[in-house]
Amino acid sequence: MAKEVKTGLVGFGVVGTGLVQCLQNNQHQIDDRAGIPIRLKTIADLDILTPRDADTSGIHLTTDVNDILNDPEIDVVVELIGGTGFAYDLITQALNAGKDVITANKALLALRGQDLFNLAHKKNRLLLFEAAVGGGIPIIQALRTGICSTEVERIYGILNGTANYILTRMEEAHLDFDVALIEAKAKGYAEADPTYDIEGHDTTHKILLLSQLAFGCQIRFDDIYREGITRLTFFDLQMARELGYRVKLLAIAKREGDRLDIRCHPALIPLSSQLAAVNGVYNAMVVAGHPVGTVMFYGPGAGGPATGAAVASDLMEVARQIQRGNQRRNDYSFDYRNLAIKPVGESACPYYIKLNVLDRPGVVAQVTAVLAEQSISIASFIQKERREPHEAVPIVLTTHEASESAMELAVEKIATLDSVVERPFLIRIENLQ
Amino acid sequence: MAKEVKTGLVGFGVVGTGLVQCLQNNQHQIDDRAGIPIRLKTIADLDILTPRDADTSGIHLTTDVNDILNDPEIDVVVELIGGTGFAYDLITQALNAGKDVITANKALLALRGQDLFNLAHKKNRLLLFEAAVGGGIPIIQALRTGICSTEVERIYGILNGTANYILTRMEEAHLDFDVALIEAKAKGYAEADPTYDIEGHDTTHKILLLSQLAFGCQIRFDDIYREGITRLTFFDLQMARELGYRVKLLAIAKREGDRLDIRCHPALIPLSSQLAAVNGVYNAMVVAGHPVGTVMFYGPGAGGPATGAAVASDLMEVARQIQRGNQRRNDYSFDYRNLAIKPVGESACPYYIKLNVLDRPGVVAQVTAVLAEQSISIASFIQKERREPHEAVPIVLTTHEASESAMELAVEKIATLDSVVERPFLIRIENLQ
Repeated sequence: MAKEVKTGLVGFGVVGTGLVQCLQNNQHQIDDRAGIPIRLKTIADLDILTPRDADTSGIHLTTDVNDILNDPEIDVVVELIGGTGFAYDLITQALNAGKDVITANKALLALRGQDLFNLAHKKNRLLLFEAAVGGGIPIIQALRTGICSTEVERIYGILNGTANYILTRMEEAHLDFDVALIEAKAKGYAEADPTYDIEGHDTTHKILLLSQLAFGCQIRFDDIYREGITRLTFFDLQMARELGYRVKLLAIAKREGDRLDIRCHPALIPLSSQLAAVNGVYNAMVVAGHPVGTVMFYGPGAGGPATGAAVASDLMEVARQIQRGNQRRNDYSFDYRNLAIKPVGESACPYYIKLNVLDRPGVVAQVTAVLAEQSISIASFIQKERREPHEAVPIVLTTHEASESAMELAVEKIATLDSVVERPFLIRIENLQ
Repeated sequence: MAKEVKTGLVGFGVVGTGLVQCLQNNQHQIDDRAGIPIRLKTIADLDILTPRDADTSGIHLTTDVNDILNDPEIDVVVELIGGTGFAYDLITQALNAGKDVITANKALLALRGQDLFNLAHKKNRLLLFEAAVGGGIPIIQALRTGICSTEVERIYGILNGTANYILTRMEEAHLDFDVALIEAKAKGYAEADPTYDIEGHDTTHKILLLSQLAFGCQIRFDDIYREGITRLTFFDLQMARELGYRVKLLAIAKREGDRLDIRCHPALIPLSSQLAAVNGVYNAMVVAGHPVGTVMFYGPGAGGPATGAAVASDLMEVARQIQRGNQRRNDYSFDYRNLAIKPVGESACPYYIKLNVLDRPGVVAQVTAVLAEQSISIASFIQKERREPHEAVPIVLTTHEASESAMELAVEKIATLDSVVERPFLIRIENLQ
């Protein structure tokens, strides 16, 4: 029987540092709860010399990942380098070498996860990924075990701390997107290249992983409709608020029979909803199904300490299994059912429509006539006063539920109207019921 | 290797029925995720003849619990009878017979749990209790595994659906406690004898169990300060709201060095806090610690379907372990540290004070003088107009942080003032920071 569980960490960045700090600061508790001491034996990183805010005495530091892969003493490999190339090879090799693997790499698991999950299954090794979604929120564990008897119908939430921070700052400081992004970069909440976060890739990776667990099916990333937050302005947030909503970058997955409606896009959600109160870098996910009803999880969605803690909790799970000499088999499967992805054009929802129009008689009549042609009915209408003569004025409409395809046709036609200055801007309204 | 996991259920009430429905409705998913079929072989209940809203074909129904205890085929016993006498013997016998045990019995685990936990440990059998706290919310699982690397500093929440339903109805329908209680009974949200829920016993049992898990220590029920909601009036809820608060039955546990401040009582919490938005029979718990930060869990706190789902999830965990031939050891221990319970008299918080006074000159001066003597400073003051001449008028004060013992002395003295009609009524204010 093992006397301790030896771990190799690959990737000594923000989350890696958080993990090392967690293992050190909470060592006694962690060892007690795991039932066996967990020892971090080796850390590999291409840049291993830059000092980190963590004590590495007694840990072998190396630039060579083979020091971990080829070390028969190492039981568990923690992959925190990110990316979908080298990380893939690393995890493959680690599993093939009989090691359990923990990763926080949502992009890799969302894009190339199936091979890795299959390999882990074949090798009877754990492949755990609590830190891949929701930072410190134990949502993966909840789906794997805590609420695993429930047949999930819907899962939705705010899954990206950077985008949510930007939206929160736009609203509270009356900033447009670009300014808020600069501020987020300056504060370290957005990366130098923020595409991944603000264009919804990250959120989409995460809803993919949650949905695979919740619905027990395989999902292809490219099949998921995705829209980022870069076109939002403070004006939109202000109008949304006037209408009783807040704008969030929302991930949604709803099972409808044998189809899955899964999307990532900005949405107006009711100000009174719990998700509307999720601000800054916090994340929250709602899971609804039979028989559990509706459950919500809320917490820090990113950051080294919280995400490092999630990795450490996974490590404790692996350690317990090793200590007990247990068979190590993952408690998820994505082959339980096949769900076809519902084309986004077949969806229907209420819409927020922003138009810039020349202030001429009859404009509103023209626009509403086009909507009426597509059987789209208007729920509310806001026209702000013109600031300068001949300046275009913004008009905001909300509609009752309309099909995506009807709305698409209406927008095309409205864009061609003489008095309409630019293509109408749409945001979906999700009442989260 | 086992071909299926056979279960015996003792107690076929609301939660038992929820469990049977869950196992039937979600059978395919449950068997797939557990990796082995879960079969409910026998149900024992003293009243086994009353029809339940669940299909029992193929299940052996009996009034004799020995049909389960003495059946060598039965792997797992689910205890849903409640109470702390017979249930204790039943679980003891089941563990001694080498069976794993699942229970939803918070009273039993809070009052006599230590023997049972020790016995499970000795027998290498699982004793799981997800359904004991928070209905369908997987908070036990989260503390056991999902956030187990975090050193918890604080855990607090709304843990009793009945009390929360009553408070919600009092506020929204302008009801006093007694009327709201009658309504809750009529709707089936309160039992014929509601003492357990409205006097805080149930909430106290639950915060005890959560704290034992979170802090890794043993706690005696009798050491926990407990106060119910029976003295609250609509007027209190209305005043609280005017002051920017909502009144909730709150359970709190905070670690302060090697002491634990653990309590259950009504409290004014900020209207803007997430817990203030937890209404009706919903529950929510906040866990804060290093390094995870603050995490919140929200969901249905009671009811057959949600609680039955929690039992079913536990059952799947047991089944997985049996299927894999794993050593079955519980992943919690309450011997990690010793914490002394902080006497409630040593606590300090801001207070809400309601006084009924005769409307005479100088009353307020007298009251405030007494508070000043105890170095208690006043934060706000509301005096409502007198309705009838010579009628006593209510005065509401809030204070800045004051020690419990100073407040106690002040209240004693205020109660003796000629113009003060009855003993002042205090509610603690918790700003939840």
